[in-house]
Amino acid sequence: MRFGIIGTGTVGRTLAAKLVSLGHEVTLGSRTKDNAAATSWAEQAGPYGHSGTFADAAAFGDVLINATAGTVSLKALRAAGAERLAGKVLIDVSNALVFSPTGEVTLDPVNTDSIAEQIQREFPDTKVVKALNTLSAPLMVDPGRVPGEHNLFIAGEDVEAKATVTAVLEQFGWPAGSVLDLGGVASARGMEMLMPFWLSVMRRFGHADFNYAIRKAD
Amino acid sequence: MRFGIIGTGTVGRTLAAKLVSLGHEVTLGSRTKDNAAATSWAEQAGPYGHSGTFADAAAFGDVLINATAGTVSLKALRAAGAERLAGKVLIDVSNALVFSPTGEVTLDPVNTDSIAEQIQREFPDTKVVKALNTLSAPLMVDPGRVPGEHNLFIAGEDVEAKATVTAVLEQFGWPAGSVLDLGGVASARGMEMLMPFWLSVMRRFGHADFNYAIRKAD
Repeated sequence: MRFGIIGTGTVGRTLAAKLVSLGHEVTLGSRTKDNAAATSWAEQAGPYGHSGTFADAAAFGDVLINATAGTVSLKALRAAGAERLAGKVLIDVSNALVFSPTGEVTLDPVNTDSIAEQIQREFPDTKVVKALNTLSAPLMVDPGRVPGEHNLFIAGEDVEAKATVTAVLEQFGWPAGSVLDLGGVASARGMEMLMPFWLSVMRRFGHADFNYAIRKAD
Repeated sequence: MRFGIIGTGTVGRTLAAKLVSLGHEVTLGSRTKDNAAATSWAEQAGPYGHSGTFADAAAFGDVLINATAGTVSLKALRAAGAERLAGKVLIDVSNALVFSPTGEVTLDPVNTDSIAEQIQREFPDTKVVKALNTLSAPLMVDPGRVPGEHNLFIAGEDVEAKATVTAVLEQFGWPAGSVLDLGGVASARGMEMLMPFWLSVMRRFGHADFNYAIRKAD
């Protein structure tokens, strides 16, 4: 399958590398065509790894991944172009963290809105699926880093799109039963609001090799 | 031990009943002395269960529990009286849910503040410990309702107060190792911001007999 990844940070490059290793073809898209992170990634990625602009990545992929910082996601997706996003599945991995000069981390949007909902509203012909924003990049593509059963969460309006995303997550090593569908895209709000808690737990453990497991009565 | 519980809703009454069953003495406090929920609870609770005003409950307890709705917690604690709260451990179980006419649920405060932080700022001589706001009332006092290992979280400035609270949670049936200390009271922000996610999971399962387990690399 062809993937277009919007964003060349740790998350984008980690997902790109995993997808290429699985035999998929990937274009890693950045704001400018000559972005060093993207071109150097593509140089070492082999024949199935390419770099380009946000628009190039969006045009290339059958499935798209928003791996930009949540605070700039809408801007990046506008640069990719609504016509290139239309009809496609867009996996939104973003978190909209705002870092204050005092070290405080907050979210924007939060509580009454989420990045995933903003994207879905602005690009109604795109099938937005919130996923993978609740854990570290290395763990996204290697669930065995954390022992035992633990969960991923997805939210989005399109049931087929969520099935497509779940199949990708299974290729990443997540058992299908570990992916909990929380319903429509409005549930992305709760997924994005997990981040302050996640940061507290990371500070407590001193590392990011942890994940949530939801335990329930039978 | 003597407990004063501020708030007569499901959470307050559930915790009160459990504490009495463990041999503790409890005053369940309400806004008015003749609150039906509090007096009828006390009537059937036996000699160790009492009812009274917020001030009565605060004066009575060695350990206090804020079990009011987060949106009215400060008002309730002001009615209890700063002088009666001073020097005591206050377990803050609240969530500040705001229900809109359209059925949307949001939090206030959120993101840049939390109820626990607001309480700690306004009552600096009280030892606020955020706890038990991340799960249903029946599960708070009966962790075996959900099989396997799962977690509670605490946050607060006072280490001894957190040890006191952990000991109470152990009496409720939580193994000491299941209580994860997330640090200072600012970490209550992340704990309170779990609520929208919790509501999504509850809608998904159709019941509230679930809890978070944090899985981590060894």
